[in-house]
Amino acid sequence: MKVTVARKAHFNSAHRLHNPAWSAEKNLEIFGKCNNPNYHGHNYDLTVKVTGEIDPETGYVMDVKILNDLIKNEIEARFDHKNLNLDTVEFKNLNPTAENIVVVIWNILRPLINNQLELKVILYETERNFVEFAG
Amino acid sequence: MKVTVARKAHFNSAHRLHNPAWSAEKNLEIFGKCNNPNYHGHNYDLTVKVTGEIDPETGYVMDVKILNDLIKNEIEARFDHKNLNLDTVEFKNLNPTAENIVVVIWNILRPLINNQLELKVILYETERNFVEFAG
Amino acid sequence: MKVTVARKAHFNSAHRLHNPAWSAEKNLEIFGKCNNPNYHGHNYDLTVKVTGEIDPETGYVMDVKILNDLIKNEIEARFDHKNLNLDTVEFKNLNPTAENIVVVIWNILRPLINNQLELKVILYETERNFVEFAG
Amino acid sequence: MKVTVARKAHFNSAHRLHNPAWSAEKNLEIFGKCNNPNYHGHNYDLTVKVTGEIDPETGYVMDVKILNDLIKNEIEARFDHKNLNLDTVEFKNLNPTAENIVVVIWNILRPLINNQLELKVILYETERNFVEFAG
Amino acid sequence: MKVTVARKAHFNSAHRLHNPAWSAEKNLEIFGKCNNPNYHGHNYDLTVKVTGEIDPETGYVMDVKILNDLIKNEIEARFDHKNLNLDTVEFKNLNPTAENIVVVIWNILRPLINNQLELKVILYETERNFVEFAG
Amino acid sequence: MKVTVARKAHFNSAHRLHNPAWSAEKNLEIFGKCNNPNYHGHNYDLTVKVTGEIDPETGYVMDVKILNDLIKNEIEARFDHKNLNLDTVEFKNLNPTAENIVVVIWNILRPLINNQLELKVILYETERNFVEFAG
Repeated sequence: MKVTVARKAHFNSAHRLHNPAWSAEKNLEIFGKCNNPNYHGHNYDLTVKVTGEIDPETGYVMDVKILNDLIKNEIEARFDHKNLNLDTVEFKNLNPTAENIVVVIWNILRPLINNQLELKVILYETERNFVEFAG
Repeated sequence: MKVTVARKAHFNSAHRLHNPAWSAEKNLEIFGKCNNPNYHGHNYDLTVKVTGEIDPETGYVMDVKILNDLIKNEIEARFDHKNLNLDTVEFKNLNPTAENIVVVIWNILRPLINNQLELKVILYETERNFVEFAG
Repeated sequence: MKVTVARKAHFNSAHRLHNPAWSAEKNLEIFGKCNNPNYHGHNYDLTVKVTGEIDPETGYVMDVKILNDLIKNEIEARFDHKNLNLDTVEFKNLNPTAENIVVVIWNILRPLINNQLELKVILYETERNFVEFAG
Repeated sequence: MKVTVARKAHFNSAHRLHNPAWSAEKNLEIFGKCNNPNYHGHNYDLTVKVTGEIDPETGYVMDVKILNDLIKNEIEARFDHKNLNLDTVEFKNLNPTAENIVVVIWNILRPLINNQLELKVILYETERNFVEFAG
Repeated sequence: MKVTVARKAHFNSAHRLHNPAWSAEKNLEIFGKCNNPNYHGHNYDLTVKVTGEIDPETGYVMDVKILNDLIKNEIEARFDHKNLNLDTVEFKNLNPTAENIVVVIWNILRPLINNQLELKVILYETERNFVEFAG
Repeated sequence: MKVTVARKAHFNSAHRLHNPAWSAEKNLEIFGKCNNPNYHGHNYDLTVKVTGEIDPETGYVMDVKILNDLIKNEIEARFDHKNLNLDTVEFKNLNPTAENIVVVIWNILRPLINNQLELKVILYETERNFVEFAG
């Protein structure tokens, strides 16, 4: 009898989509205006879901305050008001597409959450584009 | 070939998180400001999803007006403008965490919906915290 | 290691729910005000999700610009600012319930998207009613 | 010391923009796809604001339940699940642009609300287009 | 050349509408289910707007971080996870209607904000009901 | 009898708050993480409102398609997927605070819109911070 608990958060970052193995022309062709050399940015909206049994003593699957602190300390502190390409180790050599960002966030959070809980991460890059990853 | 039909609803309730088996100190430590003795409250946003085959005569999986009436009569009438701890039998002896509320709602609705239809309930306690239960 | 990429779009259409095999009375009884002979309408909000592996060269599961173009050319161009019952071949003989619309959209998009990618379509008829179909 | 009280509501209608004094070509040129002869439709989101002094006995400027009933009986009953051009007297000879609709709604409500209260109406035709009228 | 800067915040409270000068019957007649003796609750969404000249050195009308701290310290700390009727001095003898709450918030904030800046407060009690006060 | 017509749009940009006349310490003290040398970014949501008389022939205050084209050509083309500090002439020597951006946008649009129409611009930098300017 598994219940899912979810918490939303957000961070505001600059990024640029770029593959250094390609020519400038190919980068522009594939990534279009997202390849702008001087970066652009987004308000990223993040939802983190954990799924598991309800603890009968607390009535919680996981204390959402603890989940929220994890997101603040591990994700917001790392990416908020940062340039993903220049200011983070995670995207020094990894193209910061929404797909890659959502996998990176899942990989950061997975070892920090009880492994009896399933983990899913949803990331909105804009109100109209979003990605999901569940491992 | 299963399609999901969903209906959103809402109710506004007071509640308090509290485990009577614990000391006041432990309740405060675990539940924080949600343990306030005089209660606080939320606008709960509810989504009920049913999944099944489309009836070829109506083009419906389930008539959403009927689903809406069920939610109004069974969930809103029970919980809207109520104190969950004091005014309901469901939470007289059950801590009204979002997790427990979503399971209670699912258990109320399950016998009232055709058992060939799958049922999932999503409950937003705030815009940033939500829970899901599918049995 | 599958990631889901989603894109939102919308179209504004008129429609009428009606089963020509039924009497006027039965149509009114089942479909209520949705059976209005002169039609009514909605702002349909559409989410299209594709799920698959991340291409290591692009960092994309599927280029969301290509997905967006597909939705514009195949769905919006067909249904936006149209009367679903009168102006489309899809609903000439099919009742345009939300359930039938979401299946029609999925069937239009499925052959146009790489068959190694899973496809799911979500359609909001109003802010409070929505349907989902994944094949 | 005036306070504004606002209530949101909605209705779903079909409509067509058309000026019968113009040629078909001019109608198409000016109104584009909104001129589709078979109509299209919208989920209209309506906000009604009344502004005045707080009644010290009730703490209300105007009882929002009464305002809500007015909107339901006078606006939703008239326009919801209707074809604005064909099913309403208001738009028999008036082009149902968002601007004209918002003025019509204001004119319906104005005599029904205490004339010591100011009245403003906001109407969303889509999530991205809206109009406002305050007399 | 005045610009408005706005900041959104929220708090979750229990409350009950009640006029102690009236009979129980009259309270129930006027306030309906909002008169429930055991309280109900809301997620209040608050927008605070300040209007004034842009400081040419900072490019700010008012530093939104300072505005945010004011809202957190003066409004959220006072009302969040509280019972407005029982836990606050402001509503000990004042009916906590949305109208009265928005005026109370404005009166708390007004002396704390530079008096060359205009102040307006908007308070959503539910997604569909809101109030505004500008002094 | 003036009606307001509004159109929403958006653009995604990188920016950095910085006053070159100040020391690095003072910039950090005043602008905090918004002073990050490598930039951060936002999804800016823009609402443009024009107010005037309804043209009796069209039923429009201003054709929203024309307003939308103006916003696309003059605002989105200039700022979308750009670094406001590095890629635009407007913010080469002007700190790109939300306040300054909203005034710049108003100044770009004002001469392009019929001067019998009033103009107001609203800009959301995040879901919780926004600014307004009406000249």
